[in-house]
Amino acid sequence: MTHPSTESPAALRRLDPEDAQLALTRVQEVLHRHEVIENLVHRQAEGGDRADLVENLLQRQHEAELQGFVNSLHPADIAFILESLPKTERQMIWRLVSAAFDADVLLEVSDWVRESLLEAMNRQDIMAATSEMDADELADLAPDLPPDIVTEVQKGLTVEERARLIEAMGYPDDSVGGIMDFEMVRVREDVSLEVVHRYLRRLPELPDHTDQIFVVDRQDKLLGTLSLSALLVNEPEIEVRDVMGTDYLSLSPLDTDSDAANAFERYDLISAPVVDGIGRLIGRVTIGEVVDVIREDSDEQALSRAGMQEEDIFAPVAMALRNRAPWLMLNLCTASIASFVASRFEDTVSTIVMLAFLMSIVAGIGGNSGNQTMTLIIRALAVGRVTGQNLWALIKRELLVTFLVGLMGSIVAAGFSWGISRSLPIALVMMAAMIANMLVGACVGVLVPMTRARFGKDPALGSSVLLTFATDSLGFLIFLGLATIFLI
Amino acid sequence: MTHPSTESPAALRRLDPEDAQLALTRVQEVLHRHEVIENLVHRQAEGGDRADLVENLLQRQHEAELQGFVNSLHPADIAFILESLPKTERQMIWRLVSAAFDADVLLEVSDWVRESLLEAMNRQDIMAATSEMDADELADLAPDLPPDIVTEVQKGLTVEERARLIEAMGYPDDSVGGIMDFEMVRVREDVSLEVVHRYLRRLPELPDHTDQIFVVDRQDKLLGTLSLSALLVNEPEIEVRDVMGTDYLSLSPLDTDSDAANAFERYDLISAPVVDGIGRLIGRVTIGEVVDVIREDSDEQALSRAGMQEEDIFAPVAMALRNRAPWLMLNLCTASIASFVASRFEDTVSTIVMLAFLMSIVAGIGGNSGNQTMTLIIRALAVGRVTGQNLWALIKRELLVTFLVGLMGSIVAAGFSWGISRSLPIALVMMAAMIANMLVGACVGVLVPMTRARFGKDPALGSSVLLTFATDSLGFLIFLGLATIFLI
Repeated sequence: MTHPSTESPAALRRLDPEDAQLALTRVQEVLHRHEVIENLVHRQAEGGDRADLVENLLQRQHEAELQGFVNSLHPADIAFILESLPKTERQMIWRLVSAAFDADVLLEVSDWVRESLLEAMNRQDIMAATSEMDADELADLAPDLPPDIVTEVQKGLTVEERARLIEAMGYPDDSVGGIMDFEMVRVREDVSLEVVHRYLRRLPELPDHTDQIFVVDRQDKLLGTLSLSALLVNEPEIEVRDVMGTDYLSLSPLDTDSDAANAFERYDLISAPVVDGIGRLIGRVTIGEVVDVIREDSDEQALSRAGMQEEDIFAPVAMALRNRAPWLMLNLCTASIASFVASRFEDTVSTIVMLAFLMSIVAGIGGNSGNQTMTLIIRALAVGRVTGQNLWALIKRELLVTFLVGLMGSIVAAGFSWGISRSLPIALVMMAAMIANMLVGACVGVLVPMTRARFGKDPALGSSVLLTFATDSLGFLIFLGLATIFLI
Repeated sequence: MTHPSTESPAALRRLDPEDAQLALTRVQEVLHRHEVIENLVHRQAEGGDRADLVENLLQRQHEAELQGFVNSLHPADIAFILESLPKTERQMIWRLVSAAFDADVLLEVSDWVRESLLEAMNRQDIMAATSEMDADELADLAPDLPPDIVTEVQKGLTVEERARLIEAMGYPDDSVGGIMDFEMVRVREDVSLEVVHRYLRRLPELPDHTDQIFVVDRQDKLLGTLSLSALLVNEPEIEVRDVMGTDYLSLSPLDTDSDAANAFERYDLISAPVVDGIGRLIGRVTIGEVVDVIREDSDEQALSRAGMQEEDIFAPVAMALRNRAPWLMLNLCTASIASFVASRFEDTVSTIVMLAFLMSIVAGIGGNSGNQTMTLIIRALAVGRVTGQNLWALIKRELLVTFLVGLMGSIVAAGFSWGISRSLPIALVMMAAMIANMLVGACVGVLVPMTRARFGKDPALGSSVLLTFATDSLGFLIFLGLATIFLI
């Protein structure tokens, strides 16, 4: 891969795919070297003026090296490096980043990194960085900024931009309104393509991700879209209305960003207009934002399966504690309840101690099997494949698959049980309990995410706690219950 | 959201966001109605000619209704509906889809659905559908086609297209070569923009997702890219070389598709050129393919965490068995080993039966906590944030976070243990074992995915089996070991 940089070198460069990672390693090495020498100097001449002097010189040399290097990178790569460093080193590198990149980098980084960057900036730097942002970018940043700076920045905006800023700040983060921008090219339907060409030539450049121009009337109502392809392949004297498309996807600012992402993915879009209730064009969504939504949704899903929210490997420890503790406590409670259920069978277990070692196998395999079912269902729900009509077919299929896998597995498990207990009845109870608990897992795996989705909750979050709770408690209950009935 | 359809209605339509799902429900309803009436007629007059006649009429009526409806949808929506139906109904609907959509739908659907669609087509239909495909589309489809049809289709291609087909088929599925297409517009650097405009006007349309035109020399070496923005905002008499960009991202056909996806995401790209070892332009990758890669990678990751590969809720049962059984058997084996480890402490457990009910809590919480760590590390590895330099800082951070959460959790667990056993020593052993096992989970959660990544294996796959194995076996060992030492 050859990576774009902000300079314009004369020749094409051919770099390694792990470019940004190499850059990160290089920054870390310089930081490390600096730290080692600093410690050395300090140890040799504690507190002396000479040590300070040497340190100062060294620091300046390292800083110059880092500064030159960091500022040769793409702002997205600078953001990546800042995200990958612990807080003090991050702020040190941030101070070296040229002010010209401040705005871009601030918009690229994750929320929790942005906080620590803003902390390290003074008022003037922040004002300078925000003054070049568009209304939609300001709206994204505003919650992290000191209120008085937001007020100050607003004063510098035109009336139109201020109205946009207020509008953009009014939409939820996960709505189309939250990801739309206002950089649109509008034309009228009764002009010729030649006029459009002349109009575009007056612009310094087209907005990013422009693949279509919006055709509106005097009230700003959207009439159609003129793709750049249509603009370029048709003769200049043709009128816009004759080549504009009138059959396109448009979004409402209150649609969810995930719905928009699904639509972009399915119809292979690059941009889509956002219109209000009466059909007026108020913004557009581009694939750049949509790709971020898709990636964030997928990250969120992976984290929420483990009971976490947005957290990074270098997020502050206090944040990590708040993030992880609730989930583990919840799991601890459900595990305690399951173990309390099992302890009701104390007499049975003290008669046949081997049961104590087998019961966790029954519970575990039920959870694993249920988790497979649940993963499939959550994915099918996410793409809208599950309807009222096929629910029953779905449950039947999952129960059948689970029963067949369970049958195979339970033979192995029965063999193992016989091996450690030398008792055929125990092996048979093991077999029955394992199949039964796997079926419990399949039912919970289908029904819990479906129920949560029906009531509008995120199907992934919390489902796995419920699943483990059910397969643990019922696994112990079924296994020890059957053992009490048939073996005691 | 307003959805695009294949017809061109005069006015804009405003539809619901869950459009495709509504269409699916409607198809299912007609199918269901048809089935109900069919059963009714059969029951009333078994085997009679009249019943056949009525059924025939009804069938034709339902088919006509479905046909009109299905063919009014976007090919991507037709693919979605086909994927959401069981096999027989899927093939019935497929027969109603107009031949004009065959190629698009075949290219949209998942592999396992495609098989069942091709089954339901005769030779001529397949030939007709494939004859309009581009070389890169054919290459995607070829593995599913009967070999004699591939040979036949090749005969219909131009020499250039045949060479491309063979080239495209040579790259692995998950490489840039596997997702690139050949629909590029090329220009020379020494012509004016006016000439480029005239050249484009001779094309019927620009290739999908064209945001830049490639500037090449006579040997097809890539010299730069001309963005449509630069083409449109600059004066026609300017030469291409004066406005072309020479600092862009280019890919090699052997880069992985995930690397390409990361680059598209970070640099907000719409298309990127693919060049060979000596700098010749051989293809391009577009955001349309990249979005599919991102979605597939995220799906794959979710499935592989549950020990599955690509499977859908309507995939054949035999496929589901092959897919799920190995993982469950593996888990069964590790659970059996863990339970074997625990059974070595039979004497301890038969002396204090309560230990049997507490040991699964220790094992479970270690697994849950380790899973949080592992999820974070896998994500950080995927974006390349983990380097040799920060590994140690990472381990320290995870151990600290885990220790602090463990301390809180173990107080709760000790309380519960005291509650069911009324023994302070047991509560203290519980506390120590739980913290220790959570630290085991944290170490395994960091080291296993890192080690797998270093040896080039997918860090997600298999990591969770190893994690559960470690936290189960060591959890039992630590807890029962401590109990044997201090309580017996």
